[in-house]
Amino acid sequence: MKNSLGAETVVPTTPVWVVGTYDKEGKPNVMTAAWAGVCCSKPPCIYVSLRKATYTYNNIMERKAFTVSIPSLEYTKEVDYFGITSGKKVDKFSTTGLTPVKSDLVDAPYVKEFPLIIECKLIQIVEIGLHTEFIGEIVDVKADSSVLNEKNLPDIEKVKPIVWNIAGMSYHKVGKSVGQAFSLGKEL
Amino acid sequence: MKNSLGAETVVPTTPVWVVGTYDKEGKPNVMTAAWAGVCCSKPPCIYVSLRKATYTYNNIMERKAFTVSIPSLEYTKEVDYFGITSGKKVDKFSTTGLTPVKSDLVDAPYVKEFPLIIECKLIQIVEIGLHTEFIGEIVDVKADSSVLNEKNLPDIEKVKPIVWNIAGMSYHKVGKSVGQAFSLGKEL
Repeated sequence: MKNSLGAETVVPTTPVWVVGTYDKEGKPNVMTAAWAGVCCSKPPCIYVSLRKATYTYNNIMERKAFTVSIPSLEYTKEVDYFGITSGKKVDKFSTTGLTPVKSDLVDAPYVKEFPLIIECKLIQIVEIGLHTEFIGEIVDVKADSSVLNEKNLPDIEKVKPIVWNIAGMSYHKVGKSVGQAFSLGKEL
Repeated sequence: MKNSLGAETVVPTTPVWVVGTYDKEGKPNVMTAAWAGVCCSKPPCIYVSLRKATYTYNNIMERKAFTVSIPSLEYTKEVDYFGITSGKKVDKFSTTGLTPVKSDLVDAPYVKEFPLIIECKLIQIVEIGLHTEFIGEIVDVKADSSVLNEKNLPDIEKVKPIVWNIAGMSYHKVGKSVGQAFSLGKEL
């Protein structure tokens, strides 16, 4: 017998991604988002869902582009700061000392110090309710050499991404592998 | 200097969720999805992105409802099986011995043995490309007592959800908390 918790978004797991945009004047901004993920393989697309009240919402509307920078665990403090402050009031890069890098493919900046970044051009806007979903086509993914495995792919144990736990309002690390896909299930 | 990996969806983290549906004849089916997440707080909504070739795609089109059952680590083998087989050919519940439970709120079944489930009614269909995004409004979330914390919320360390690592094609556990949100960043 399961307990009803009501119509709430208290579900794991969601990512901790940092969305990079430029405002009208060209000031780089970043915000943390957990309502985000992959939504298509061909074309490769990710989405971020944002409230209209955010600075980033208007920036994406204006520039039709965004990046996602995937932080390592060591930047959890900066990531939390990016989520509790607004680019309307502060310059989040100068406060944290992190470095905005202009993408040469889309009209948006990414965070130099984060090991893995995704550059996107806006292709769809989906109105849902409090949140608007921005679907971006991935133009390129870039990674530091230090997080690549022998296949030139980002190794999750080296990237050390953060997972969001809304029920506990806590950030979590990703643990060890518990099995290989397309393999384990063959036993059944 | 970052290395270009091309326009690929090789990004962490995405969840490992099991989508439950009924087909035309009322046969319960489940499939594993990682292109899934939360996309709105009010109304509370999640999405799953599916290829048209999946059995689940047609089931959602037909029934306008789906559930997501969030598996614990101990069911990784069954979850992999749910991802590599099709409901067109097999009855995934009978093969694994897991139990379909009919939701009393939406026209879809969930997995009894999984600790946390989400019941959704379909509210939007977004055509993107190879994948179609189904946005479902959360009607209820239900959890086993064993995974609830003192606030009656699902404790991520008790739910033990699985994270998908596409770059390594591996399933991962969620590790310990590395900090509290809306708190850590105040130091900056």
